[in-house]
Amino acid sequence: MAEVLTTKIEEIKKGTMTGGDLAKQMADLKRQIENIKPGAEDKISIIVFSGDLDKVLAAFIIATGAVAMGMEAVMFFTFWGTPVLRDPKKRVGGKDFMGKMFGFMLPKGRNAIKLSKMNMAGMGTSMMKSLMKKKNVASLDQMIEMAGELGVKIYICEMSMSLMGFKQGEFIDYPNLEYVGVATFLEQAKNSKVQLFI
Amino acid sequence: MAEVLTTKIEEIKKGTMTGGDLAKQMADLKRQIENIKPGAEDKISIIVFSGDLDKVLAAFIIATGAVAMGMEAVMFFTFWGTPVLRDPKKRVGGKDFMGKMFGFMLPKGRNAIKLSKMNMAGMGTSMMKSLMKKKNVASLDQMIEMAGELGVKIYICEMSMSLMGFKQGEFIDYPNLEYVGVATFLEQAKNSKVQLFI
Amino acid sequence: MAEVLTTKIEEIKKGTMTGGDLAKQMADLKRQIENIKPGAEDKISIIVFSGDLDKVLAAFIIATGAVAMGMEAVMFFTFWGTPVLRDPKKRVGGKDFMGKMFGFMLPKGRNAIKLSKMNMAGMGTSMMKSLMKKKNVASLDQMIEMAGELGVKIYICEMSMSLMGFKQGEFIDYPNLEYVGVATFLEQAKNSKVQLFI
Repeated sequence: MAEVLTTKIEEIKKGTMTGGDLAKQMADLKRQIENIKPGAEDKISIIVFSGDLDKVLAAFIIATGAVAMGMEAVMFFTFWGTPVLRDPKKRVGGKDFMGKMFGFMLPKGRNAIKLSKMNMAGMGTSMMKSLMKKKNVASLDQMIEMAGELGVKIYICEMSMSLMGFKQGEFIDYPNLEYVGVATFLEQAKNSKVQLFI
Repeated sequence: MAEVLTTKIEEIKKGTMTGGDLAKQMADLKRQIENIKPGAEDKISIIVFSGDLDKVLAAFIIATGAVAMGMEAVMFFTFWGTPVLRDPKKRVGGKDFMGKMFGFMLPKGRNAIKLSKMNMAGMGTSMMKSLMKKKNVASLDQMIEMAGELGVKIYICEMSMSLMGFKQGEFIDYPNLEYVGVATFLEQAKNSKVQLFI
Repeated sequence: MAEVLTTKIEEIKKGTMTGGDLAKQMADLKRQIENIKPGAEDKISIIVFSGDLDKVLAAFIIATGAVAMGMEAVMFFTFWGTPVLRDPKKRVGGKDFMGKMFGFMLPKGRNAIKLSKMNMAGMGTSMMKSLMKKKNVASLDQMIEMAGELGVKIYICEMSMSLMGFKQGEFIDYPNLEYVGVATFLEQAKNSKVQLFI
């Protein structure tokens, strides 16, 4: 009996040795896991630098498309993209000379922007708009509304606002609008699976 | 004898306690692994929005360069990028008025596109082409052929086709060509290490 | 006594069985870990294809902003971006006819580039520059210096240099400047969290 037991115990002991090895292997795995650089969140971050109708449309088509697929979407409007979000019905005072000049020269909101090519004194732009209607492609107006409903976040670049003399009071009403610096955008971008500069 | 055995068993038992701890640690590791957001595939996804010769060339240089490095590459041609892939020798009928007009106004394929700058009534574009030949840089024609051989996937945007009235029958012969919506592209883009909007 | 021992041993044996199971589970976890695609490094890679003042400024604002957040930044100057880094005070000889022509026609460095829109024969560009000064936004000159101090890496595309006939001797003095091919850039880009084509 005792002999059988001893043999069994030896067997078991081998088992516990394996246990020790396992502990070592476990520590190795832990280290490996800690060293893995994790991937990004299921999010898309788009810099809308351009103020051309075709490019802004593309940005919204991509952003709303991404949200429809279950991703998050953030759009950062900067430079020529900034005036696209002005509300032509809103007026603000207290602008300096340069601010007034920019306010005058830059397009007054999304319905005043033009195609980057084939604008042909506005004819190409009108043609494209009527074509989009005919082919059931959402207009920029509808696209922005949809983006708001779908929860697309819109950031407006504070530096661009300052340069162009824009005030917070002259932008469109939008559910998820924030005025931020480039750092806030980059924080989102680096945790996103997709980033685009449009 | 029995006493020796008991002691041994106590030792072993400690071993199994370690076993229990290991099981707990194992479950922890499992949870950690499940929570890691995995990185993307070794792939590049390029949106070719522009139809300018210089930008389309850049897109192909990047895509073929990536494949030469062992990456996968996907190019999504949309908007002004779409007509670049027309085959000037192919003619399709059944277009409506707007489709005919776009067909007429947009460049007829890769040999009809121009530089985005310094085109100078075509002189800059010709100069660049002859220069590329002299410096042994592949032409767009050669680049597209090479891309096909290397397995670069080309997607053509269905919405752009619909807007511009293009039919599948008028695009170039290419081994890996598909007609897709923005969702199909985004699905690839979000699993890619690199994404560019050109 | 022996009976008690046997029971204990049976218990322990169960423990060692768990040990065996653990080994199997461990192997499973190992496989899972090996299959995880690791995420990218805390780095941003920017292709500066455009030579427009507004876009080059945006590229530097983003790159320096990223470094200020603790990220690495790499900028790859190609095509129209290349002449932006010329030093107007440096002259090199030994250029062929086309090289001289490009040298003459392309902007002579960062102070000669223009806005992509509203340049208005230079008036818009001057206006923007004076405005940036007034609003305490760093000029391109200051931005490049800051980028150098912060450790932003600058790559100049060898193929563009060859096409445009530029020599290494005519570029600006910059602490982290290298002349590379597209493969070197892609190697960095695919390990970066953010990539942009500007």
